[in-house]
Formats: sequence, structure tokens, C-alpha cells
Amino acid sequence: LEKAMKGRQPADLMLRCTILDADGNVKTISGQFRRAELCSEHRLNPRDLRKIDSRVPNLVPTILVRKEAILVNILHIRALVKADTVVLFDTYGSADSRLHSVFLYHLEHNLRAKVSGLPYEFRALESILLSVLSALEAEMVFIRNLVGGLLAELEDDIDHDRFKRLLHYSRRLASFQNRAKLVQEALEEVLEQDEDLAAMYLSDKKNGVPRKAHDHEELEVLLESFSKQVEEIVNEAENIQSNVQSTQEIVELILDSNRNALLALDLKVSILTMGIGIGTLVVGVFGMNLKSHIEEHEYAFYVMTAVSFAAFIGAAWTGVRRLSKIRKVGLSNGNRKRPEKRRYSLFSLRGRRYEGW
Amino acid sequence: LEKAMKGRQPADLMLRCTILDADGNVKTISGQFRRAELCSEHRLNPRDLRKIDSRVPNLVPTILVRKEAILVNILHIRALVKADTVVLFDTYGSADSRLHSVFLYHLEHNLRAKVSGLPYEFRALESILLSVLSALEAEMVFIRNLVGGLLAELEDDIDHDRFKRLLHYSRRLASFQNRAKLVQEALEEVLEQDEDLAAMYLSDKKNGVPRKAHDHEELEVLLESFSKQVEEIVNEAENIQSNVQSTQEIVELILDSNRNALLALDLKVSILTMGIGIGTLVVGVFGMNLKSHIEEHEYAFYVMTAVSFAAFIGAAWTGVRRLSKIRKVGLSNGNRKRPEKRRYSLFSLRGRRYEGW
Amino acid sequence: LEKAMKGRQPADLMLRCTILDADGNVKTISGQFRRAELCSEHRLNPRDLRKIDSRVPNLVPTILVRKEAILVNILHIRALVKADTVVLFDTYGSADSRLHSVFLYHLEHNLRAKVSGLPYEFRALESILLSVLSALEAEMVFIRNLVGGLLAELEDDIDHDRFKRLLHYSRRLASFQNRAKLVQEALEEVLEQDEDLAAMYLSDKKNGVPRKAHDHEELEVLLESFSKQVEEIVNEAENIQSNVQSTQEIVELILDSNRNALLALDLKVSILTMGIGIGTLVVGVFGMNLKSHIEEHEYAFYVMTAVSFAAFIGAAWTGVRRLSKIRKVGLSNGNRKRPEKRRYSLFSLRGRRYEGW
Amino acid sequence: LEKAMKGRQPADLMLRCTILDADGNVKTISGQFRRAELCSEHRLNPRDLRKIDSRVPNLVPTILVRKEAILVNILHIRALVKADTVVLFDTYGSADSRLHSVFLYHLEHNLRAKVSGLPYEFRALESILLSVLSALEAEMVFIRNLVGGLLAELEDDIDHDRFKRLLHYSRRLASFQNRAKLVQEALEEVLEQDEDLAAMYLSDKKNGVPRKAHDHEELEVLLESFSKQVEEIVNEAENIQSNVQSTQEIVELILDSNRNALLALDLKVSILTMGIGIGTLVVGVFGMNLKSHIEEHEYAFYVMTAVSFAAFIGAAWTGVRRLSKIRKVGLSNGNRKRPEKRRYSLFSLRGRRYEGW
Amino acid sequence: LEKAMKGRQPADLMLRCTILDADGNVKTISGQFRRAELCSEHRLNPRDLRKIDSRVPNLVPTILVRKEAILVNILHIRALVKADTVVLFDTYGSADSRLHSVFLYHLEHNLRAKVSGLPYEFRALESILLSVLSALEAEMVFIRNLVGGLLAELEDDIDHDRFKRLLHYSRRLASFQNRAKLVQEALEEVLEQDEDLAAMYLSDKKNGVPRKAHDHEELEVLLESFSKQVEEIVNEAENIQSNVQSTQEIVELILDSNRNALLALDLKVSILTMGIGIGTLVVGVFGMNLKSHIEEHEYAFYVMTAVSFAAFIGAAWTGVRRLSKIRKVGLSNGNRKRPEKRRYSLFSLRGRRYEGW
Repeated sequence: LEKAMKGRQPADLMLRCTILDADGNVKTISGQFRRAELCSEHRLNPRDLRKIDSRVPNLVPTILVRKEAILVNILHIRALVKADTVVLFDTYGSADSRLHSVFLYHLEHNLRAKVSGLPYEFRALESILLSVLSALEAEMVFIRNLVGGLLAELEDDIDHDRFKRLLHYSRRLASFQNRAKLVQEALEEVLEQDEDLAAMYLSDKKNGVPRKAHDHEELEVLLESFSKQVEEIVNEAENIQSNVQSTQEIVELILDSNRNALLALDLKVSILTMGIGIGTLVVGVFGMNLKSHIEEHEYAFYVMTAVSFAAFIGAAWTGVRRLSKIRKVGLSNGNRKRPEKRRYSLFSLRGRRYEGW
Repeated sequence: LEKAMKGRQPADLMLRCTILDADGNVKTISGQFRRAELCSEHRLNPRDLRKIDSRVPNLVPTILVRKEAILVNILHIRALVKADTVVLFDTYGSADSRLHSVFLYHLEHNLRAKVSGLPYEFRALESILLSVLSALEAEMVFIRNLVGGLLAELEDDIDHDRFKRLLHYSRRLASFQNRAKLVQEALEEVLEQDEDLAAMYLSDKKNGVPRKAHDHEELEVLLESFSKQVEEIVNEAENIQSNVQSTQEIVELILDSNRNALLALDLKVSILTMGIGIGTLVVGVFGMNLKSHIEEHEYAFYVMTAVSFAAFIGAAWTGVRRLSKIRKVGLSNGNRKRPEKRRYSLFSLRGRRYEGW
Repeated sequence: LEKAMKGRQPADLMLRCTILDADGNVKTISGQFRRAELCSEHRLNPRDLRKIDSRVPNLVPTILVRKEAILVNILHIRALVKADTVVLFDTYGSADSRLHSVFLYHLEHNLRAKVSGLPYEFRALESILLSVLSALEAEMVFIRNLVGGLLAELEDDIDHDRFKRLLHYSRRLASFQNRAKLVQEALEEVLEQDEDLAAMYLSDKKNGVPRKAHDHEELEVLLESFSKQVEEIVNEAENIQSNVQSTQEIVELILDSNRNALLALDLKVSILTMGIGIGTLVVGVFGMNLKSHIEEHEYAFYVMTAVSFAAFIGAAWTGVRRLSKIRKVGLSNGNRKRPEKRRYSLFSLRGRRYEGW
Repeated sequence: LEKAMKGRQPADLMLRCTILDADGNVKTISGQFRRAELCSEHRLNPRDLRKIDSRVPNLVPTILVRKEAILVNILHIRALVKADTVVLFDTYGSADSRLHSVFLYHLEHNLRAKVSGLPYEFRALESILLSVLSALEAEMVFIRNLVGGLLAELEDDIDHDRFKRLLHYSRRLASFQNRAKLVQEALEEVLEQDEDLAAMYLSDKKNGVPRKAHDHEELEVLLESFSKQVEEIVNEAENIQSNVQSTQEIVELILDSNRNALLALDLKVSILTMGIGIGTLVVGVFGMNLKSHIEEHEYAFYVMTAVSFAAFIGAAWTGVRRLSKIRKVGLSNGNRKRPEKRRYSLFSLRGRRYEGW
Repeated sequence: LEKAMKGRQPADLMLRCTILDADGNVKTISGQFRRAELCSEHRLNPRDLRKIDSRVPNLVPTILVRKEAILVNILHIRALVKADTVVLFDTYGSADSRLHSVFLYHLEHNLRAKVSGLPYEFRALESILLSVLSALEAEMVFIRNLVGGLLAELEDDIDHDRFKRLLHYSRRLASFQNRAKLVQEALEEVLEQDEDLAAMYLSDKKNGVPRKAHDHEELEVLLESFSKQVEEIVNEAENIQSNVQSTQEIVELILDSNRNALLALDLKVSILTMGIGIGTLVVGVFGMNLKSHIEEHEYAFYVMTAVSFAAFIGAAWTGVRRLSKIRKVGLSNGNRKRPEKRRYSLFSLRGRRYEGW
């Protein structure tokens, strides 16, 4: 605890970041910067930078609007967007360098392309959101394939090992769902606050023409479009989730019903065994070294053999009949339900349609 | 990922669409148009058209209001409604051509019928929503029949295969429920924004008399009526869903209770087998080729046979009695509950009515 | 589908309805009227009447405020209330004529009693809501008795057939709950919209003194009072629902625990059977027609009998001891938990009170 | 139904109530009053009094603000608070007279103590809310002890009877939770409406200085303080509830796992029995009264005995080995999971931390 | 009850507290103060102090803004922050003195450091929230490790004792989750009320320059930053929670599936036993001391032995075949599903993608 409380204050003075200038060219790659310098240069509060500090993992994505900059911290991207500069902070352990280089390539390209009509900071934002979106989409497709494949395997065989994989996948899915929802919430939080939206027109601000609080249609359409697409992903993840859920429920029912079938077969075997036991007992009686005077009869052997098998078959048949009575399971209960039906009708205003089931 | 990010930019230049003119006549059927041309002709943002692009499947339905057009993308319909034209985009793989031709027939008819008092764009919208509604309704009725039939079958017999079908149906149901809810949300989202509603009076806008933000009662009543009907469908789907849910729960209880019955019968059989075993043991003792001096007694055979059967019956009877004690399961626990009841009453302010249960 | 889309347009021209005049007298009973005439007479939109059309079953109740009338469609009642007329539409298949005649009697009486100070349309509304309320209440009491009785039966005996009835009742309950909630939502929707409330003062409107948007206390108190009572019913239904739910959960636990008890007894029997088997094996050894020279010993018979029974008892005892070790199930796990307890205390800020459990 | 509709109108003309005057002295104890008189005396609407009528049990508590009075109907208390009088209605069957007399004592005392600075009506309200709060608290403590004790018992032994008690307690808990939540909602409903809060300053109104809508800090602090305390109780009840829930879930898992242990032991016994059976079969073969020429060998007896026991042990050993293979259950699945892990890493943006589990 | 109602009024006159002055120096350590004096000195309402009274445990954290002070009551900290003094109340039984001393050290340090630009009261608040946050974080990390470790153990072996620990951990987790959520709600409640935020600028108020209702950006940023971090913790706790949940569900499935495997093996053993029984019966028949004339045949012994083993093997083989038919469980049901698929396609507007599963 002590560490936690102290560790928050000084230390960690260096941050690695990549800087792009106003023309979209990379000025520095993974350069080391002092935290304090960054703060003063970009007029940030040290508390803001802490969020971006790569060593503290953040689950909750944030888009913070500051005086001269927008601080974006979503999934794998931690960036500081200004009216003429983009600072990308290296996230700690972001081994996924391919995703990052595609993003960088797209960002450079987009920053150069001034024709689109969007100001510099929004083009940067667009690239960032596009990268986030494609990362989410890729993961969603990946999980959908994993889960879909597993569920398809379950079609063929319900198996122990598959449940274990199901557990791993549904953990992944839950964690993904959570992340996607948080991204959506972060976008919507920004969209809801008119002041923040207006304050994000950094170029205008720099040129001394700050936007009015309600004049931000361009940005709203941009963010809304991404928000809709993230919503689509969240929705799809929920679909997968509910699919997994209902599969689990049905699998449990199938296992239960299968168990009953196993038990019923077991019971049949037990009944046969019992019948055989009776036969053996009958037969054993005559195996005793005692005089019964039956040994003197000519056909006693055949009669007793028949008797023992008859006892076997009789006992088994009785057992199997009782079993088959129990085995017949259905939801309807024959004649008892009828009279109640009639009592229902008095009040079944609209419930009628559903009662037939 | 790379593909995902790049694929979003250019490409896909052609779209197939059907165009209806101001008199409701079909001008072009499945004609090919350049995306860029469509954008410039109808003054749309390319980003808007992307939603309608048939190759990207969309789950989340949208009704977008643009300067001169309304973009509708709900379920099987992707349309661009203007003050004097309706452009229907062919959805990729929409094999359900019958649904589509009925829709087209109705749309043509409705666009021609100028008597209803509604402007051109609302008549188009009405046809679109009607088609969506009847598609939802048809699917709902279809699923209701499927599920209802299956649940009726479960009345007769709880069966393995039926659970598998139940799984398939409840996946269908969940996916349908999701779609219906999203349609309702899309309608309500439009209804909530007064500016959008007013901006949908395209004919008035074209004639240079844009509506004021609060003057949109006609449209509101139209959309509200559809929204109510979709709500009804959503509600019904939820009913089916809760029905399936409670059936699953009870089926599980029934399977459990059936399993206990099977076990109890098994136990009876086991007990009998054990009793028979005792008899066999007794009898076997006298089958030993050892001298016991009992063989000299005259009635030893009959006595020992009786003893062995008595052992059998005694053991079985003891077992069955213990079983029947366990089998009696109820929720009440005889005399122990009483004293607590008295302690309850002190605080049972209003809980009284529920305690009797 | 085609039918669905076409069926919506013309057809269904006749509606049966009962009309009461300004003095509460029944003018027409179940008279047939043309839909178009009704529309023009009461200045309604045909779309409004469609909701009331008895052939389309409606789950979602609605209270629509139109220029000269209030259209009420709740449960079994579909009525058009005007400043001096009440039109009751016959609901298709409303066999529950007793409920209806009580309602009609009350409505007539209430419309005549001008002393209460409420305008004509509110007295009609009061009667309608009262009838709805008493229908809901009656059904709630009925279901409560059904479910309560069933749960009381479950106290005595947990049974197969009872689960089936439980399923039927909980479907009924869910459907009732849904309907009651929808009624409440319909009432609250009206209560939330000041314009609608003001527009419901039809008499004032007719007399040319329309109410201002915020001057509707009388009506608000009236509707709020019904809303509260419906809330009470919804609340009670939820109570029953949660009761059923927790009973199901506990019944499952009891069945599980009972199954374990059955298994344990089964195991005991199996162990005894195994012991007997060992005895039989020992005894059988000496039943072989082979020379073992043991047959020459005098007391061999008694020794071997004793040995066989000892084997039986030894095996059984060992088995029963292992069983009893497994059978002892509790939530605490002896000594292992203690050391962790100590580690807890460091952070157990307020969790302390709950840890004792 | 008829009764329900008629029963609502006249009848029930007498109410029993206790009246306290402006100095906190009891004027009448359980005096009988006509309903109509009460209405006219306190300028109430008959509909308001109906809520307080003791014969209709109310679950949903209400605080109604009328022109000259506050009508309070929470749990066991039904009171009419005016600027100089408090009328307490006797609740039907409120046997809990001790709670009531403590309340009456406190109320008298509080009404006399004019020093606190609060006006008469708020002192009455304070006493009422305090009584409600202490009743809720007492019941919560009582239920917490019941449930806590039961859960502690479950630590030692998971038992049939305990589940039944658990059912009764969790019904009680659910009903209590419901009541506490409704009390909180009632308080918050009042707190949300500024007009109502201002209208509750009855003394000021009587003195002709009605409060302005936003000038009600005193009352707000008073109600908020009670609301917070009720929230605390609701929160605690939810804690107990979630505790019960998670205990049920784990108990089910433990019963399941115990059942598997029982089955495994059963299986071991079955395997031994089967082995013994094989031995008996071998031995039995030589018990046949048939010539096998083996009887002539000297050590045949010992050899066959050894063979039979070897068959027994061999069969049992094979069985037990297969059993132990099945019995080893874990969530990890050895080597199969690894390769997938590698494929994960591509997209495991932030999911990384959770994968280790 | 009586005690509860009386106990609330007088008594408890002394409170122990630690006071820090305007320079951050500790003036008094655990000094005893009269409640009444504290109230009058800091101009508090006695009701406010009751919340802070250490003997009543509070679950719901509160931040109350009073005229000259902020009352903070979160988790282990109960403090009164004024413009130049901080009063820390000793919480009853707060054995966790280390957490407290770290907090005190940090608070002193922070109060002295006037350079940060924040007024005195906000520096105190910052220290308090930081201590709360690090306490939450520490507990979260601790629980995450506990649960993570347990789930990792479950990977290896699903065990009885582990479930018991799981129960204890998930209770802890639920209680932690609840606390963290309540802290977040308390922070957000303050953030939502502009008046309260403005009223918290105690220094300005003291200097006679009260803030306007909307001028509180500094404080908002401070509180928002803590709120975000608590949200992160809540989010993580929910992740752990959902992880535990899905693990429980899968463990149940695995136990179920394992039980089926056990049953299947049991069945195999039973079938073998039955087969052996048949063999024994056959053999026993010839053990009878009855004449069958078969004993005279030369190879009768070998024939009958073969017959008995054949019966054994035949019976066992039949049984095992039937078993293997039941054992094959999958979700797909061969050929029956196909025809329905075709009927689906009519309406499978967008459901198509999910059907493949």
C-alpha cells in the first residue's frame, strides 16, 4: 500500500513516443521524452498523462478534451492529438506491432490527404478510431470463428474437453464484450457533451475562431458513424454470447436426459441380474449336500432348471414393466389437467393464445 | 487487418438498384450505378452509402435523414427516399424474391394513390415500414408455430432430439427478438429527435417551405403506429422466450425427479438382488463338500431352504423400508418449523400473507 | 405475406358496437356499423380504428387521445369515449359476458350520477379503468390461489405431476404479469404527457374552453390512483413470481440432495452385495468337486462358514466406512481455511460482518 | 367480480383511529369515526381515505400531500398528519402492539418537544419514519440472524431439512427486500417533487405563509437522511440475498461433486463385485457334477482356487484403472490448449491479464 | 425496538478524533471530544455527526457538503474537512493501523505542499480519495490473486474443497464489488450536483468569495479522475465476477458429463456382472444334485463350460452395444433437421449467418 501511494507521485519520468508533424511525416520514432516536458509543452495536467502512462493498464477507454489537445486512450492506442501534431505513446508490451504499423501507415496517409475537407485533428481521430474499429472487428471475427467452430463440434459430440475450451472461449468473449461496450460508452460520452464536441475543433481554436457549443455537425456525424459500427460489433458479441448461453442450457438438458437413458439401461441390466440371481438361488438350493428326496425323481433336473429359468424371466419381466411405466415422461398429465382448464377460461382474457402450448 | 483497413476506402464502385419515379412507375430494374455518381446525384456523403452497400451485412437498422433524402436500411430493405424518387438497393443474396415483389407491388400502388393526403416520401416510407412489419410478423408467426409445436410435442414425451430442435429454435428466436428490438429502437430514435422528424418533410423542403421543428404530427402518428406494432411483436417474442425458458426449467426438474424415481427403482432391484445373494450364500454353505453333520437330519433340506428364503426376504424388507423413508420428499419439515413460526410473528408486518405458502 | 399486406387495406367494413348516450342510457346494443361511417362521424383516422378492430388481437394496451374522442383499448375493453357518447366495441370472442355486463351496469350507473363533479368523459374512463382493475385483480387472486395451493401441495410431496402443473401456472403467471405491466405502462405513458392529459378534457373542449397544458389535476389524481393500484397488482405478481422461482431452486437442491441420499443407500446395498459375493466365493471354492484334503478335517465346515461370513462382514465394513467418509458434506473445510482468514483481515475494511458466515 | 366493483363504492363507513392534539396529548384512543365525517373535516377526497382503509392490504407505501394534510401509509403506520393534529388509523390485525406503543410513546414525546426547531408536522413525520425505520431494521437484523445461522449450519452439514428452511427464509427475505425497496421508492418519489415538498410545510400554510417551491431544505435533509438509512437496509438485504444465491450455487456444485464421488465409490464396489462374480463363475464350473478329469490332479483344488482369485483380482484391477482415468477431472486439457494460445496472442489487446486463469 | 428508538437520541457523547491544522501538523491524536461541542464548533447538525459515529457501521459511503465543512465517510475514512482544519474520526475497531498511518503521512505531506495550486480542502480531499482508492485497489488485487489462484487450481482438479473456497471468495468478491460500486455512486452523486460542487470551495467561501454554481472545473476534474479509477476497479471486479460465473457453469457441465462417463462405465461393469451371472446360472444348473444324464457324456464338462462362457459373452456384448448407442450424444440430429432448414430460408432475412452453428 505504501508503495501504491508513493509510487503515484514522482518517478516514471520518461515516456517513449512517436511524433507526427502537421504534414503527416514521422518526426521521431519511439523517442524518449520527459513527462514534465511533455506536460508543459502541450499544456497538460500531469494527472492526464498518468492515464496514458503505459505501465498502468487501463481497461476503461477515455477521450479527454483539453485546452490544446485531445487525449485518446482506447485499447491499443494512446495518443495526443493537437491541431498540428500527433503524439503516439508506445504502449507497454504492445507486441502486436503489425496492427500498429498498419495504423501508422494509414495515419500518415490520412494526415497528408488534406482534400477530404476534415481538419487535421479529425483526420487523426478518424485514423485512430478506424484502427480501433478494425482491431475490434478482427477480434470479433476471430472469436466468432472459434466459438462457431466449437459449437459445430458440439453438434457431433458432447465432450468433456470441449467444455473446457468453451470455458476459455466464453471468458475471452466476456472480456471482449466488456471492452467493446466500454469503447462504445466512451464514444457516446463524448457525443453527449456539446461543449466537449465544440472544444475538439482544435484547428479553429488555434486560428482564434472557437466553435459555438452547438456547431459540431461534422464531428458528430464522424463519431456517430463509428459509434454505430461499434454498436454493431457489441450487438454481434451479444448474439454470440446468447448463443453460447442457450447451447449450455440445452447441453445440460441433453446430458440430463442422456443420464436418465443410461440409468434406465442400467436398471434393465440390474433387473436381469436380479432375475438371474433368483434362478441361481433356486438352482443353488438343489446344490446343497442335503437330502431332499427330489433327487430321486427322474425329470427333477429338467423341472428344476425350468423353474429356475421361469423365476428368472418372471422377475425380470415384472421389473421391466415397472421401469417402462416410470420411463414415459411427458409434460402433459393426462386427465387431471382438463377440469382446471375449464376454471381458467373465466379469466383468460388474453392469455388464451398461450394456453394451447 | 490490413485488408480491413484498406478495403474500406475505394473499391466497390457499382451498386445495383431499382428506381421508382414520382408517379410510382419503375424506371430502372436492378440497374448498375456508380457509387460516386449516386453520391453526387443525391448529395450524399460516401460514408452514408457504405451502410447501404449490400456486401457488408448490417444488423443494426438505421433511418438516416440527409439534406434531400431519407436513407432507410431496415432488415431486407435498403432504400433511398427522395421527394420524387425512391431508389431501392438490391440486397446481396436476398433470395426471398417473393417478399420483395409483394413489397414492390405495394410500393408502386401506394405511390400512385395520391388521395391519402400523405406526401410522396411518407407514402414510400409507409410501404417500406409495412413490408418490414409484415416480414417481422410472418417470421414471428412462423417461429411461434415452430416453438409451439415443439412444446406441444414435449407435452407427450421429453426427448433428446426435441432438445436439439429446441436449441435451434431458441437460437432463431433470440436472433429474431434481437432484430425486432433493433427495428423498434431505430423507429424510436427517429421519433425522439424533433429536428429529424421535421427534416423528413422532403416535399415541403423541395417546395421551399421547410417545416418547423415541432410541426410533424402526421409523420409522428405514422411512425408511432408502426412502432406500437413492432412493440407488440417484440412483446410476443418475449412471451415465447419466457415460455421456452420456464419450460426448460420445469423439464429439468421433471428429468431430475424422474431420475430419482429411476434410482429408487434401481435401489429396490439392488435390495432384492442383495437379499437373493444372502439366500444364495446360505444355500452355498451347504453346497460345500465338507461334513457338517446336518446332512444327516431328515428335514435339513427343507429347513435350510426356508432359512435361505427367510434371509432373502428379511434383508430385502429391511432395505425397502429404509428406501421408502428416504423417498418421501416434501418441502415441509414436520414439527421443526413450528417454533420458528412463532418467532416470526413479531416482525411479520406485511409478510403475513406470503408466509402461508 | 401477400395476404398480410393486402388484408390490411380494405375489407372488414363492419364493426359491432354498443352505444351509450349523454345520459348513460344504452342507445344501441351490438349494432353493426360501417367502419368508414364511424371514422367520419367521430373524426377518426382509419388507422386508429384498426387498433380497435376486434379481429387483430392486441397485447399492448393503448389510450389514444384524438381531437374529439379518447380511444381506449385495454384488455377486454375497446371503447371510444366522447364528450357525450361512449361507444363500446364488441371484442371478438369475448365469451366472458358476465364481466362485461357488470361493467356495462356500472358504466350506465356512473354516467348517470352527475353529482360526483367529474365531467362525463372522466366518469366513463373511471368505469373502464375500474373494470380493467377488477379484471386484473380477479385474475391475480385466482392465480395466487392456484400457485399458492400448488406450492402448499409441494410442501407435502415433491412430485412429477406437480411440476407439470407448476409449468402451466408459471406460464399463466408470466403472461398475466406481462399484461399487468403493459397496462401500467399505458397509464404512465398518458400521465407523462401534459398535452395529452389536457386534451382529454373533452367536455371543456366541446364547450370551447380548452384546458391549458398544465391544468389537469383532477384527471391526474384519477389516473394516478389507478396506476398505483395496478402497480400494487404488478408488485404482487412479481412476489408470486419470485416465490415460484425460489421454490424451483430449492426443489432442485432437495431433489439433488435426495438423489445423493438414494445413491448412498444404493451404495450400502452394493457393498453388502459385494460382501455377500465374497462369502459366496469362499463357500463356492469348497463346492468344487476337487480334492482339497480339507474335507477330512472335522470342523472344517464350521471354520469355512465362519471364514466366509467374516469375509462378507469385513468387506462390507470397509466399504461402509469409506462411504460414510464421503457422505459427510459440509461447507466448511476444517483447518485449511484458518490461515487464509488471517491474511484476509488486512483488507477486510468493511467486509468483516459478512465473513462470519 | 360484481362484489369487487360494488364493494368499492359505499359501505365501510366506520374507521377506528387514535387522535393526538397540538400538544402531543392523546385525545381519543381507537375511537370510531364515520368516513364521510373524516373526509369533510380534513377536506380529503374519499378516494384518498380508501388507501388508508385498513381492510384493503397495501403493499405499496404512499406519502400523499393534500391541501391541509399529509397522508402517510407506510408498513404498519397509516396516519393523517395536519398542522396541529395527528390521526393514527388502526391497521387491521396489527397484533404487534408493542411496536405500536413504542411508536405512540415516541410520537407523544416528540410532539411535545418544541425546542428542536422543526414544525409540528415534521416532528410527527420524523416519529413515523423513525418507527418505520426501526421496524425495517429489526426485521433485517432478525432475517440476517436467521439466514446467517442457517448458512453457518450448512457449513457443518448440507442437509435436506436445511434447504426447506432456506426456502422459507429466502421467501421472507425476498418479501422484506421488496417492502424495503418500496419504502425507499416512496421516500424518493416525494423528494423528487419540489411542489410536494413545499406543500408539506403545513404550519406555514396554515399561518398564511406558503413556502415557495424551492425553499424546503429542512424537510429535504430530514427525508434524505431517512432515505439513506433505508438505502443502507436495502443494500444489506441485497448482500444477504446475493450471499444466499452464491451459497445455493456452490451447494449445488458440492452436491454434484459429492454425487460423482459416491458414483465412483459405487463403481469401485461394482467392479469388485464383478471380479468376485468371475471368481465364483470359475469356481462354479468345477462345482458342476460333470467329469472334467481335473479332479484327479493332486493340486487341482489349489490351482483352481488361485485361478479364481486371480481372475477376480485381474478383473477388478482393470476396472479400477479405467475408473481412475475417468475420475481425474480438471479444467485444463493438457497439450491441446497450447497451440491455440499462440493464435490468441495476435488479438489479445488487453485480454492478456485474464488469460492466465 | 425500544432500545433502538431511544438509543438514537442522547448518549454517545464522546468521539475520538485526530485533528490537523492549516499547516498540516497534527494537533491532537485520538483526542476525546464531546459530540455537542463538535457540532457547535463546526456548525453541524447532530444528525450529520450520527453518520460519522463509529459505532454504527455504514455500508453506504457519503460525501455531505455543509455550510463550513465537507463530511466524508467512505470505507475506512470518516473525516470532516474544513477550510483550515481536517478532523479525522477514529473508526471503531479499525485495526488496520498501517493503512491509516500511511494515509496520515500522505495527508500531512499533502496539506503542507501548497505549491500544487489546489486549495487546502481539496488537497485533504485528494489524500482521502487516494487512500480510499489504494485500499480498493489493494483489496481488488488481493481478491484477484485469490480467485485467480483458485481457478488455476481448478484447472488441475475439480474438487470439493475448492468449491468451498470458491464460495468464500465469491462472497468476498460480491461484498467488495458492492462497496466499490457504492463508492463510485457516492462520487458521481456529488459530481452531478453543481450547487454541491460549488459549495465545496470552502476556502473561497471563507474568504468571502463564494463560487458560482458552474465554476468548479478544478474540483470536477479531480473528482472525475478518481471516479474513473474507481470505475476501472468496479469493471475489473465485474470481470472477475463473470469469470467465476462462467467457470461455475462450465464446471457444472463437466461434472455432469463426468457423471455420465462414470455411469457408462458402471453400466459396462453391470453388464459384465450380468453376463457372469448368466454363466454362473448355467454352471449352477449342473451343480444341482439331480440326475440329468448329461454327466454321463464324456465332454459334457467342456461343452457346458463353453456354453456358460458363451452365455456370459453374448449377454455382455448385447448390453455393451445398446450402451454405445445411448452414449453417442451430439447436438445435431442427423437427417431430421434438414427439411426444416428449407422451410427456414423463407424468412431468414438476416438470421442466416447464425444458423450455421
